[in-house]
Amino acid sequence: MKVLIIMGSESDKPVMQESQNHLQFFGIENEMVVASAHRNPDKVREIVVNAQSQGYGVIIAAAGMAAALPGVVSAYTSLPVLGVPLDGGLPGGIDALYSIVQMPAGLPVGTLAVGKAGARNAAVLAARILALGNKQIAERVEAFKQNGYRI
Amino acid sequence: MKVLIIMGSESDKPVMQESQNHLQFFGIENEMVVASAHRNPDKVREIVVNAQSQGYGVIIAAAGMAAALPGVVSAYTSLPVLGVPLDGGLPGGIDALYSIVQMPAGLPVGTLAVGKAGARNAAVLAARILALGNKQIAERVEAFKQNGYRI
Amino acid sequence: MKVLIIMGSESDKPVMQESQNHLQFFGIENEMVVASAHRNPDKVREIVVNAQSQGYGVIIAAAGMAAALPGVVSAYTSLPVLGVPLDGGLPGGIDALYSIVQMPAGLPVGTLAVGKAGARNAAVLAARILALGNKQIAERVEAFKQNGYRI
Amino acid sequence: MKVLIIMGSESDKPVMQESQNHLQFFGIENEMVVASAHRNPDKVREIVVNAQSQGYGVIIAAAGMAAALPGVVSAYTSLPVLGVPLDGGLPGGIDALYSIVQMPAGLPVGTLAVGKAGARNAAVLAARILALGNKQIAERVEAFKQNGYRI
Amino acid sequence: MKVLIIMGSESDKPVMQESQNHLQFFGIENEMVVASAHRNPDKVREIVVNAQSQGYGVIIAAAGMAAALPGVVSAYTSLPVLGVPLDGGLPGGIDALYSIVQMPAGLPVGTLAVGKAGARNAAVLAARILALGNKQIAERVEAFKQNGYRI
Amino acid sequence: MKVLIIMGSESDKPVMQESQNHLQFFGIENEMVVASAHRNPDKVREIVVNAQSQGYGVIIAAAGMAAALPGVVSAYTSLPVLGVPLDGGLPGGIDALYSIVQMPAGLPVGTLAVGKAGARNAAVLAARILALGNKQIAERVEAFKQNGYRI
Amino acid sequence: MKVLIIMGSESDKPVMQESQNHLQFFGIENEMVVASAHRNPDKVREIVVNAQSQGYGVIIAAAGMAAALPGVVSAYTSLPVLGVPLDGGLPGGIDALYSIVQMPAGLPVGTLAVGKAGARNAAVLAARILALGNKQIAERVEAFKQNGYRI
Amino acid sequence: MKVLIIMGSESDKPVMQESQNHLQFFGIENEMVVASAHRNPDKVREIVVNAQSQGYGVIIAAAGMAAALPGVVSAYTSLPVLGVPLDGGLPGGIDALYSIVQMPAGLPVGTLAVGKAGARNAAVLAARILALGNKQIAERVEAFKQNGYRI
Repeated sequence: MKVLIIMGSESDKPVMQESQNHLQFFGIENEMVVASAHRNPDKVREIVVNAQSQGYGVIIAAAGMAAALPGVVSAYTSLPVLGVPLDGGLPGGIDALYSIVQMPAGLPVGTLAVGKAGARNAAVLAARILALGNKQIAERVEAFKQNGYRI
Repeated sequence: MKVLIIMGSESDKPVMQESQNHLQFFGIENEMVVASAHRNPDKVREIVVNAQSQGYGVIIAAAGMAAALPGVVSAYTSLPVLGVPLDGGLPGGIDALYSIVQMPAGLPVGTLAVGKAGARNAAVLAARILALGNKQIAERVEAFKQNGYRI
Repeated sequence: MKVLIIMGSESDKPVMQESQNHLQFFGIENEMVVASAHRNPDKVREIVVNAQSQGYGVIIAAAGMAAALPGVVSAYTSLPVLGVPLDGGLPGGIDALYSIVQMPAGLPVGTLAVGKAGARNAAVLAARILALGNKQIAERVEAFKQNGYRI
Repeated sequence: MKVLIIMGSESDKPVMQESQNHLQFFGIENEMVVASAHRNPDKVREIVVNAQSQGYGVIIAAAGMAAALPGVVSAYTSLPVLGVPLDGGLPGGIDALYSIVQMPAGLPVGTLAVGKAGARNAAVLAARILALGNKQIAERVEAFKQNGYRI
Repeated sequence: MKVLIIMGSESDKPVMQESQNHLQFFGIENEMVVASAHRNPDKVREIVVNAQSQGYGVIIAAAGMAAALPGVVSAYTSLPVLGVPLDGGLPGGIDALYSIVQMPAGLPVGTLAVGKAGARNAAVLAARILALGNKQIAERVEAFKQNGYRI
Repeated sequence: MKVLIIMGSESDKPVMQESQNHLQFFGIENEMVVASAHRNPDKVREIVVNAQSQGYGVIIAAAGMAAALPGVVSAYTSLPVLGVPLDGGLPGGIDALYSIVQMPAGLPVGTLAVGKAGARNAAVLAARILALGNKQIAERVEAFKQNGYRI
Repeated sequence: MKVLIIMGSESDKPVMQESQNHLQFFGIENEMVVASAHRNPDKVREIVVNAQSQGYGVIIAAAGMAAALPGVVSAYTSLPVLGVPLDGGLPGGIDALYSIVQMPAGLPVGTLAVGKAGARNAAVLAARILALGNKQIAERVEAFKQNGYRI
Repeated sequence: MKVLIIMGSESDKPVMQESQNHLQFFGIENEMVVASAHRNPDKVREIVVNAQSQGYGVIIAAAGMAAALPGVVSAYTSLPVLGVPLDGGLPGGIDALYSIVQMPAGLPVGTLAVGKAGARNAAVLAARILALGNKQIAERVEAFKQNGYRI
């Protein structure tokens, strides 16, 4: 199973590249796509609705400010969705953090720390999830741990 | 032109009833509908995409916690969208406030105060907007002012 | 109908220029004026009381710190008032945000995001409002959308 | 010299009664008036512009939420203005606090604590100010201190 | 694979019961255990180190105040760890939220909303994760969705 | 009557110089002294207890972080005390702001904005206070107003 | 060595009784005294300056709102000072927390959690400190641990 | 008795060097060690469980973000534990501050200010603690005071 990294803006790429780098360490196929819940809601819908049938197992969604993307992604899929709040609006990305973590009951987004630490951890958590059904990834997760949690 | 009041949950109705009461004072036809950006994204999409052709001129969108609804509504329409953050998650509804007001450039949500004051003011702002093209509403806006900003 | 952009200080101009640039994209006549609710309350009063008769349809009001201007503008007019909180006091402009969005019931200010995103969105929301009664602006709003919400 | 207590809403009276009770302990003539910077800007203007000529020496201004009143009062007078943030909007009255204390350079509002403690302290600070030119009040200020800062 | 629900205190049970109720709806075997990262660090260690070999596939960890438990659990396992911040210290459980979501790079905790909404969503996210390798759970996840995201 | 400017640290001088510059504009004799409520409590006590008899009419006290100085000054004098919260600890000086403005009932500190705006406004408020009993200062206060609230 | 518990107000006693109850469990002689850094600065000074010579080894200081007491106590003694922020002003006692924990370099206050948890922990930390030189207290600290950190 | 300085990351050393510099001024033997509650929980456990028998009397623990280290250290020892929140995650290190100071009842961490001021004060508080049983350190504490609380 692959991991889909979806982010709201081209400008989020330098941070979310951290997710991709980590996924590659874990040997997890992945794709990065830019689609905004506000600017391209139908593109988001189409990508996410079809994600599972296209072989994705986990979706990492990242956005800043009024960060609706992760929650909207969770609405369009039954896959586990991991959210990464990004800086850019209120200091520390607190607006994005609250917009992502405070999902109402029923529609979960597993939220990571704001910014680069969160981008890395989203990939690690995706790896832990996929490792449940994939021995090779499980071995890479152990290698990551042996490596001091660094790639 | 009518006003559409859309809210994320049945439990938001007692607060959003304040919007409806005020719209009725201004003589503005309106409808209240419950549809969640997370639980019913396609319902939200369909209602909002068709709102303008159905005679709506302003949409009031209210939600609590990770309040994606107003922003998503703004994504599906070119009508002016007014947002009402609701209490229910973090104290004072600060999570909903940040989720609504901090929209990225291009997709505005005119945000009002958290809770009942905001629910009332969304209706008043809708009335001010529609009064630009409707003398009867304009007269009611003046009557509201003469009345000490009370209905 | 024109749009009036009023701001509390000369130093707010670089941010509010974003509003003007966007209004020009939408083909909306506008004027920028500096007048402080604290330093020039009578100037504010006079400008705002006469705004409607002078052909303005929407007022965008921007201020930082204890940002009283948007609320005071709302008190002196029945036009729709849009508020832009500006940075400059507490980090992230949180003081200006609370001073603008938390208006008491009866006197609405449709509040946008802090800073440049809000300055742009105030213009977009003004365009959406004026588009209700003006086909040319409505076409420009669609062009803006087709353009990826950029000017 | 008298003290004027001005507040934005009838509902603020129970808290601001604390100011009045304390002023009476200090033997300071005073008057309480309800006038909102948003609902009655011209009434506020008229009262405040004439306050000094009517024998007032200090103005205590109290408001909640987007508490513009104290700053607007400071704009219309050269008397010392003391501000009392009131609860009612965001938890702890933090919106009112920021709206009052963060005045831009040139227009001061001497801000006290949120709520009853602030209402009392506004009166005590007014007494300390008037005591500079009035021995009887100065004696009452000492009596207050001897009394354990209670009336 | 089973789900382990671990919480810091007996008093957390009424909230975390929501996780258990939801897991039962999804047909996921689970166990609730009380062990504090501060009061019983060695108990936590022993339970968590052995969780995978005991058949657990996901761990839900909940705590309030300085909520170290979810992070410590993540340190002792390679299983996916989901964190639920609980109220009890600072208003809204903001202390627990920051203590859980702001994990440093390498050690992820997928964090859910504060309180009951988070307790429910931790179970739903666990179900989505386990559904990747279990058709029966996948069917229950769809049933949950059809049921309006309620059990 | 003179104004005493007291601050907790040498490093506060560049900001508090703003107070002094403004007091000089108003023609108010003043003195700046560095004394910390924590490092030199007895020095603070001695200076403040004798301030009134030495001809001071108002005390401006400024400090950052756990800013106890303004409150302690208020405890040792019956003169009006104005507080200026300074940046240096938590972002925006929010720690100093809360430490100064939230004085318990009985011991007021009239608090101004954080940083330079507050330093200026403390001087302006001192001038407004002393103007009550001094025509020359009153004239300078009007000149300041005519000058656009600038020196 | 004894422990001195000093608090700003009679109304703090129900919370600080928790400190006393825990100190008694540890067999540590103690005394509770009410003295405010604002209302009784000289009383605070006298008590604290003499604390060491009177046999005290640790001072626990508790206050709410602009909680200057713990820092002022630290200024008047070389004993270790532990601070307990109390609720009563801003929600969650955040004003007291910042006023106590953010002490400038040189004058430490070891700060505990807001409210009852902090009141208990101040006693436990005092016991750990005194246990360094007193075997009986050390044994009671172990007994406390064996008892599940409860008295 | 020695002081152990433990911190979560190599990158914390420049700040925690301040603790070491101050301890050296007080003539207190100390050791700095890097061990993370998340990356090396067993290393933390082993170091801390043996700290008392190795001659340590106080432990200073520093960490940023979800700063579990100080609390976990407190769980593994009966020595007094002092916590230093470090910047690096949310602005001002507020996430680390809440993660350290809000310890549940029974397991105290005496928390100092965020960053360098806290790093220095942890050493000063350790010196005050050890001075209770060591005259030479007590003399150095007085020398520090005479020196204006600087080394």
